[in-house]
Amino acid sequence: MACGEFELIARYFNRVTSSRRDVEKGIGDDCALLNLPEKQTLAISTDTLVEGVHFLRDIHPADLGYKALAVNLSDLAAMGADPAWLTLALTLPEVDESWLQAFSDSLFELLNYYNMQLIGGDTTRGPLSMTLGIHGMVPVGKALRRSGARPGDWIYVTGTLGDSAAGLALLQHHQRIADPAVHEALIKRHLRPMPRILQGQALRALASSAIDISDGLISDLGHVLQASRCGARVNLEALPLSAVLRDHFEHEQVMRWALSGGEDYELCFTVPEVNRGALDVALGHLGVPYTCVGQILPEADGFTLLENGKPASASFQGYDHFVKK
Amino acid sequence: MACGEFELIARYFNRVTSSRRDVEKGIGDDCALLNLPEKQTLAISTDTLVEGVHFLRDIHPADLGYKALAVNLSDLAAMGADPAWLTLALTLPEVDESWLQAFSDSLFELLNYYNMQLIGGDTTRGPLSMTLGIHGMVPVGKALRRSGARPGDWIYVTGTLGDSAAGLALLQHHQRIADPAVHEALIKRHLRPMPRILQGQALRALASSAIDISDGLISDLGHVLQASRCGARVNLEALPLSAVLRDHFEHEQVMRWALSGGEDYELCFTVPEVNRGALDVALGHLGVPYTCVGQILPEADGFTLLENGKPASASFQGYDHFVKK
Repeated sequence: MACGEFELIARYFNRVTSSRRDVEKGIGDDCALLNLPEKQTLAISTDTLVEGVHFLRDIHPADLGYKALAVNLSDLAAMGADPAWLTLALTLPEVDESWLQAFSDSLFELLNYYNMQLIGGDTTRGPLSMTLGIHGMVPVGKALRRSGARPGDWIYVTGTLGDSAAGLALLQHHQRIADPAVHEALIKRHLRPMPRILQGQALRALASSAIDISDGLISDLGHVLQASRCGARVNLEALPLSAVLRDHFEHEQVMRWALSGGEDYELCFTVPEVNRGALDVALGHLGVPYTCVGQILPEADGFTLLENGKPASASFQGYDHFVKK
Repeated sequence: MACGEFELIARYFNRVTSSRRDVEKGIGDDCALLNLPEKQTLAISTDTLVEGVHFLRDIHPADLGYKALAVNLSDLAAMGADPAWLTLALTLPEVDESWLQAFSDSLFELLNYYNMQLIGGDTTRGPLSMTLGIHGMVPVGKALRRSGARPGDWIYVTGTLGDSAAGLALLQHHQRIADPAVHEALIKRHLRPMPRILQGQALRALASSAIDISDGLISDLGHVLQASRCGARVNLEALPLSAVLRDHFEHEQVMRWALSGGEDYELCFTVPEVNRGALDVALGHLGVPYTCVGQILPEADGFTLLENGKPASASFQGYDHFVKK
């Protein structure tokens, strides 16, 4: 891009409303300079979103600006970390000012909501894609990991599962549900996932492991089991499903979305028996449901899905082979 | 990409030879967990490289792996920071194992040279591009900034200027210089720039400002002048030029490359008169030349290029309007 174009783009992103105290130098030098408060561990994650792969070509830039940050925030939530700083590397096919305005407005609205600061980035010309680098902090020794689950721990998920996949299916197939409110609710679950930052923070002292559900419960719980060297039993009838999902789709389709649809960005976490009471105190007032869906088992017991106490039908058992990517 | 393809790619990058003490958790969870040593400030920079824009389509993957990291290291060098951690978001059109092997071997060779650790990343399918997030540390209050230059300070550059642009021109126009050693030397300056990490560290206590020369001396010194609210005088006859460049190209072409060719990844820095003696002690033994090319002036004096004490010909004066990007 020409020099002037870069300056134009920079104007949309170089808007610091209030600088965080831990940011010594934000945008405008070769590096940003940051000071980590004492007794805090830094949590860093990076995610790339490519047009046509991670988001539909006709997505509204405001939805894209929100979702790009939200899915990165979800990684911080899964560690129990407090959001702090963001870097944004944006590749654009052209300079479209109305696109930039809507995208950046939406991004900054979410940044400001979490008191985050954009500390750097890069703009290049090319097919639309972006890589976000998110930085958060968590008290030393308190980060939630995938590797801490132990046999006997209870498996929980926040919110409801499968709505995002349903919303994506509606968008992809240009289908509409008669009731506009129901339709919009599912679309919104896909386009505007709510990162479970508060839940992650509340779980620091209580959960033995955590992960965010980006690829679907089977796949992501599978990562926890692998890292923790454990097995698990999940009770399908316990999976939290929204009323709109249950009322408008076939049961088998609903279960498929809930198990492996992905992009719910809910947390899946494990809690030792001794912490179950404290869990209700910690999460009860946060306004988001959380549901026990199974239990961690010894590794030798494997990973099984139960339906009313019996092994689930083969069509569900096989889902770990169809895990979507 | 299919799940298996991602696992394949991950194998090339998930090779921790020795974990840094400050890395609590590297690759393998939702976030990496890092501990910043006391009294250190974190320096973060991010850069995207897109095929056809930042590197030629026929670049060897080993050269690409080196250069992608080297240009990011150069940003740390310009702050006087010690390299520490890297994130790599890689977008690939296909899984090509020999490409991945050569790219990752070269990347890890340079990572290991600087005792850095790859702490996370992401792989997606799409047109070849990559975004690196580099993290370094610098003692509190010692970072080199663009904004510290003061009238009277002397302007220096490391190494020689213009070689990288000459190497790029040879590659782009498929030209060869008769002497293979000379040809290879210029190509190497373009493909394998040496980040001036040691020089940056040595300058922490001595330089009033610093920047790395990625876009060309005029453009990058211009950033320093803007951030420092100063003017400057640069003496063209003082510009450090390699013998190979002087001997094989027209003088005017050489000056053009030296002033605005870009991608030299040398440091441009300013030093107060009182520190000039200490500078020779600090940089003298590092094996890389450094040259005084001018002096910082009050802002009102503007930015002028002199040739043997007289204003340079109009063709050079105008170069700040042609700054390449």
